[in-house]
Amino acid sequence: MNEELENEQTSIPNGKSGLIARIKAGTSTSHPETMVGIGNDAAVLSGFEEEKTLVSTSIFAEGIHFDLTYTPIKHYGYKVVVASISDILAMNALPTHIMISLAISNKIMQKHVLEFYDGVHAACHEYGIDLIGGDLTTSRFGISISATAIGKASDYDITYRNGAHPTDLICVTGDLGGAYMGLQLLEREKTLFNANPESQPQLAGYDYILRRQLKPEAREELRKYLKAKGVKPTSMINVESGLASELMNICRESKTGCEIFEDRIPIHSDTRKMAQEFNINPVVAALNGGDDYELLFTIPLKSYDKIKNNDFFKIIGSINKLEQGSNIVMNDGAIMPLEPSLNTKTFQNAQ
Amino acid sequence: MNEELENEQTSIPNGKSGLIARIKAGTSTSHPETMVGIGNDAAVLSGFEEEKTLVSTSIFAEGIHFDLTYTPIKHYGYKVVVASISDILAMNALPTHIMISLAISNKIMQKHVLEFYDGVHAACHEYGIDLIGGDLTTSRFGISISATAIGKASDYDITYRNGAHPTDLICVTGDLGGAYMGLQLLEREKTLFNANPESQPQLAGYDYILRRQLKPEAREELRKYLKAKGVKPTSMINVESGLASELMNICRESKTGCEIFEDRIPIHSDTRKMAQEFNINPVVAALNGGDDYELLFTIPLKSYDKIKNNDFFKIIGSINKLEQGSNIVMNDGAIMPLEPSLNTKTFQNAQ
Repeated sequence: MNEELENEQTSIPNGKSGLIARIKAGTSTSHPETMVGIGNDAAVLSGFEEEKTLVSTSIFAEGIHFDLTYTPIKHYGYKVVVASISDILAMNALPTHIMISLAISNKIMQKHVLEFYDGVHAACHEYGIDLIGGDLTTSRFGISISATAIGKASDYDITYRNGAHPTDLICVTGDLGGAYMGLQLLEREKTLFNANPESQPQLAGYDYILRRQLKPEAREELRKYLKAKGVKPTSMINVESGLASELMNICRESKTGCEIFEDRIPIHSDTRKMAQEFNINPVVAALNGGDDYELLFTIPLKSYDKIKNNDFFKIIGSINKLEQGSNIVMNDGAIMPLEPSLNTKTFQNAQ
Repeated sequence: MNEELENEQTSIPNGKSGLIARIKAGTSTSHPETMVGIGNDAAVLSGFEEEKTLVSTSIFAEGIHFDLTYTPIKHYGYKVVVASISDILAMNALPTHIMISLAISNKIMQKHVLEFYDGVHAACHEYGIDLIGGDLTTSRFGISISATAIGKASDYDITYRNGAHPTDLICVTGDLGGAYMGLQLLEREKTLFNANPESQPQLAGYDYILRRQLKPEAREELRKYLKAKGVKPTSMINVESGLASELMNICRESKTGCEIFEDRIPIHSDTRKMAQEFNINPVVAALNGGDDYELLFTIPLKSYDKIKNNDFFKIIGSINKLEQGSNIVMNDGAIMPLEPSLNTKTFQNAQ
């Protein structure tokens, strides 16, 4: 924390040069394509040689995607990078560069802007991403963040949403619903705090789901694993808004149906425990909760032997013909149609 | 206008697929690099061969950069494209692709989202830009827009902010201060309307400055002109926030001073007329007003003969040594130090 800035109001126009110099000072670039980063009207990248360039952009709004009441702004810097590079990873590509913009009201101090970019820098360091630019402006109404992630992949490796075929296996990394349950916990504590500001937050023992909400990680290892195994996914998508709607995006684009099984959906024991406390069905959290940033993808049935018993993902069902519908088989044998989540959902590059 | 949508609240999650399908339907792509646009987690571009890739991102906030009280949202769609591609043009590069994101509150109807993208499509058509993606989400507080523009240029042609040298001529396209005076006019009419909703806006005869504010144009012709004349600019910047602060950005990055002349600053007669009505010095509007999206650049003194009497830009002064300071020579002979504008200013890729 910088004392000089501590009590200063942001006043972007007045403090901007200094802020930007500090953000730039925390930035290092490592990709050979980065010719010029922060400091001009645009960043300059050299060609990715034989590989294709992937570009993805996202926008996040205060009160919808984040709430500064219960989350340090540094976490949002980190999380925005993770969310954005997950869109590149979901194309089976390597994320390399990012640009992050911030529109902030004058209730936010300069030190918070720097803390936000500390989080950005931390995530860039973690995932080997070059921060090459952004935009910083004032807003009258809360905070907005936008991110543009850039990556590269060979034509052969790039995976779209529309390549799933009947009999393909449906796979998902990590586990689902944890970020949603973490959010419920934070909102409960916020309500209690608002009712009684003397109350202490009761967060002990909930580390896993809090981390899922506050500091999600991107699944960069999947691409390498599949490559090493010689398995090319037929379709892939970033799980931003719940398994149900993402799977339905794949089915719609691929013109297929699907069948998944309740007992195959990966749900962490802490997610189940919290769901029980809230009297929420944990499967509903997994199907409709957001912010997991796991990768949902399909692989040909014939690749099963190559990937069975792996540590990175679970097989949760298979792709069907369109006319068979999109369903979930519950543990009691009931077959329910999948419904898209009604969560706030971004349309990354327009679904 | 689509009747089906007219009275519907936006409700992005419910109406999203339809909205996006409509946005996509209005999109055509023409650049050979566009492999895949709207429809996946990221867009895919093939390499720009021998040329470098330029990327620029901007964020705009309601109440700061735009006000729906007096401007149809379609204009903002157009203007955001112009503002963004001007950042690519200011690198002496050709803008080719754009991604536009929108975070909107539920007071905005679906038809307004479509009107916004109508404006985006119109500008993309005008400037030959491929819309290849974006993001659409809800916000609690007003509207935010973000844009990422992509372009290409040869290593030789790319122009930065830091290449100005003493004796270089300082040049600017078009004219300055008009957008600022247009904004003053719109704000006056808004105040009158708020005081008396029966009043009719008095906008007749102010077409030029209104157009400068509501439908600015990007200076795409400059690059071609300079190329044809064999003149390579030594530095360039997009005039987003007033001549003074942009010129000082060039001087700071180039470690130089500068001298410009009041009587050389291009100001349209309608801008002068409006300024007089408002009792504003029109030179102040040119120095500190925003939103002009003209290009400010420097060329070597020896190139003067090649560009004299051209229709695209004016020479307003010259670059000096750093120790000579950055000054404006007033018509009465007084020498005043240039001060950066205190306008809201974006730091495109961090100034």
